[in-house]
Amino acid sequence: MDQKTYETGLRIRSEVLGKEYVENAMKSADDFNRPFQALLNEYCWGSVWGREELPRKTRSMLNIAMISILNRPHELRAHLKGALTNGVTRDEIREILMQVAIYGGIPCGVDSFRIAREVFAELDKA
Amino acid sequence: MDQKTYETGLRIRSEVLGKEYVENAMKSADDFNRPFQALLNEYCWGSVWGREELPRKTRSMLNIAMISILNRPHELRAHLKGALTNGVTRDEIREILMQVAIYGGIPCGVDSFRIAREVFAELDKA
Amino acid sequence: MDQKTYETGLRIRSEVLGKEYVENAMKSADDFNRPFQALLNEYCWGSVWGREELPRKTRSMLNIAMISILNRPHELRAHLKGALTNGVTRDEIREILMQVAIYGGIPCGVDSFRIAREVFAELDKA
Amino acid sequence: MDQKTYETGLRIRSEVLGKEYVENAMKSADDFNRPFQALLNEYCWGSVWGREELPRKTRSMLNIAMISILNRPHELRAHLKGALTNGVTRDEIREILMQVAIYGGIPCGVDSFRIAREVFAELDKA
Amino acid sequence: MDQKTYETGLRIRSEVLGKEYVENAMKSADDFNRPFQALLNEYCWGSVWGREELPRKTRSMLNIAMISILNRPHELRAHLKGALTNGVTRDEIREILMQVAIYGGIPCGVDSFRIAREVFAELDKA
Amino acid sequence: MDQKTYETGLRIRSEVLGKEYVENAMKSADDFNRPFQALLNEYCWGSVWGREELPRKTRSMLNIAMISILNRPHELRAHLKGALTNGVTRDEIREILMQVAIYGGIPCGVDSFRIAREVFAELDKA
Repeated sequence: MDQKTYETGLRIRSEVLGKEYVENAMKSADDFNRPFQALLNEYCWGSVWGREELPRKTRSMLNIAMISILNRPHELRAHLKGALTNGVTRDEIREILMQVAIYGGIPCGVDSFRIAREVFAELDKA
Repeated sequence: MDQKTYETGLRIRSEVLGKEYVENAMKSADDFNRPFQALLNEYCWGSVWGREELPRKTRSMLNIAMISILNRPHELRAHLKGALTNGVTRDEIREILMQVAIYGGIPCGVDSFRIAREVFAELDKA
Repeated sequence: MDQKTYETGLRIRSEVLGKEYVENAMKSADDFNRPFQALLNEYCWGSVWGREELPRKTRSMLNIAMISILNRPHELRAHLKGALTNGVTRDEIREILMQVAIYGGIPCGVDSFRIAREVFAELDKA
Repeated sequence: MDQKTYETGLRIRSEVLGKEYVENAMKSADDFNRPFQALLNEYCWGSVWGREELPRKTRSMLNIAMISILNRPHELRAHLKGALTNGVTRDEIREILMQVAIYGGIPCGVDSFRIAREVFAELDKA
Repeated sequence: MDQKTYETGLRIRSEVLGKEYVENAMKSADDFNRPFQALLNEYCWGSVWGREELPRKTRSMLNIAMISILNRPHELRAHLKGALTNGVTRDEIREILMQVAIYGGIPCGVDSFRIAREVFAELDKA
Repeated sequence: MDQKTYETGLRIRSEVLGKEYVENAMKSADDFNRPFQALLNEYCWGSVWGREELPRKTRSMLNIAMISILNRPHELRAHLKGALTNGVTRDEIREILMQVAIYGGIPCGVDSFRIAREVFAELDKA
């Protein structure tokens, strides 16, 4: 493990997905998923999100599109919130999902629009 | 059909994918695929790409990520060229594909990197 | 937008998915998803379902197969009901899902059979 | 193995995909893929295609849609030819692929239209 | 139907997924899904799981990987339990899911790790 | 980067996919794909393949199943050869692909059997 990349990753992950969210993930880790949490922090958040060649806002936009197409609702919720944190506006999310619906197909678009509206409603209530 | 949306779509498609490419597609259309070409122009390129809420460069970045994950090499080649036309740099394409490899999986990343290098080699030879 | 295609689409969508279902979708639309609802009505339901070259029953059969494979349970529920409305029998749905299980794989078949049985149970209770 | 189902399957497979095509597959089978050829004949073609609750034409239409979305060009070619044999017209194939493009996404539609045109061109030349 | 293969399949399915689970599936079967249950028993569990060339433990490991990537949570839960029955340890499941995360992408890994932990928690409570 | 993990990864990758194959990949790397090659070596081959909790033979079996389902023929070829190197027999590959065909669907099985036979034919000629 590269300690510095790990720590950069953990910090970026907390800044994007929320400090509380990530602290919970780390605290609840056990022997079973600890190596996976380490992989997430070091590679996904350190070695890729940590690269400065793309702004975080762009990375969030790409993730909304990719995770919609990958059909992973749990992760989509987390990354929709992360996208708002990274400065993607709701109007921009709409535009991304319009494009997702054309390229990934209408059922993919319907699901992602519904999930985004649920996330927004939850945030507006809080 | 909405004639104006169709024409906007045809124009944007030509600007992004290349005039020659699109003229060939339209000329070679026959009774079998003409309705699909019309749908492409009006719907995909007019009603979605024609929306001005996202810059074309961003749309191209999203497409590289989505089409990589959708596993459609022919379309990926066309949209990699379109991305360069829309101002996405080769360095930015690399960053997108690094992120694709993490979220869409390593075999997806390997394929997209290989295809991108083939497209660049072809362009460098021309 | 082509007003006539939009209206044809809205009408067909209501006839297939149910008037109440579609009225709810349209009433609850907000600035965020209104452009997507318009796209759904005009393109998906107007420009494609509105084409008369295939009977609605056939389109419903294709959708059950496609949406099963696309792994989109929400949409599958809506289109299973729509299929019954369009004259696809429960026996025909079984046959489609047997074929889905072979071509899309057993886990896809298991999920779609379970969802279809839930939809039938819900309808039988109403 | 159920010998009768196997033989029914082998016969239907030959009628749909072509006698020559299937004879080649069976003749070239070796120890490695013989059990898979048996599974194909008995399970896919005997136990599912052999069910008489759906006409072969409908099964072919479903297959064109499913195999397009599954992104399997080799099988799509074989089943496009089989569909023509089973009485699906080229106009009906166009309609299926228009619907595929909306539900499975534009890149899926582009690929399937291109493949269908190649298959038609090949048949027209023969 | 080959009665012997069917019975072998039903037996193996009960041994792997649990007698109670399979008895419930068979008892609750109706005219709609009975042919699918027969297909499951004869082909999936009889003709493939019944082959002795791979040990059940290996088949379970393959299934965890495949069903994770196929994105089918219901089936994944059943096969995670079946894997434990077949002698796959929790540590081995972790290793499989680490590899799934790399090849199938991070969101796939996150989902499968969450589901596995839920299954383990449920078993530990029982 | 963790230099030790990188070097372990590069060594394992060479042992599995072949020294010549990997040397070519590294030599032909340029500014565009060098960071991806580094990620491959460190992350995929070092941090995951480098874990000793699963034997290489098992990892190869999982990869054949996963990459078949992910529909990535280039990578499947490389990993079929790697599997033979890691001690997976041709008979075992057949069994894996039989299971792939049932869980991932018949078209996936057909493609993977064809590719495996091409790889074997190529190796037998060499």
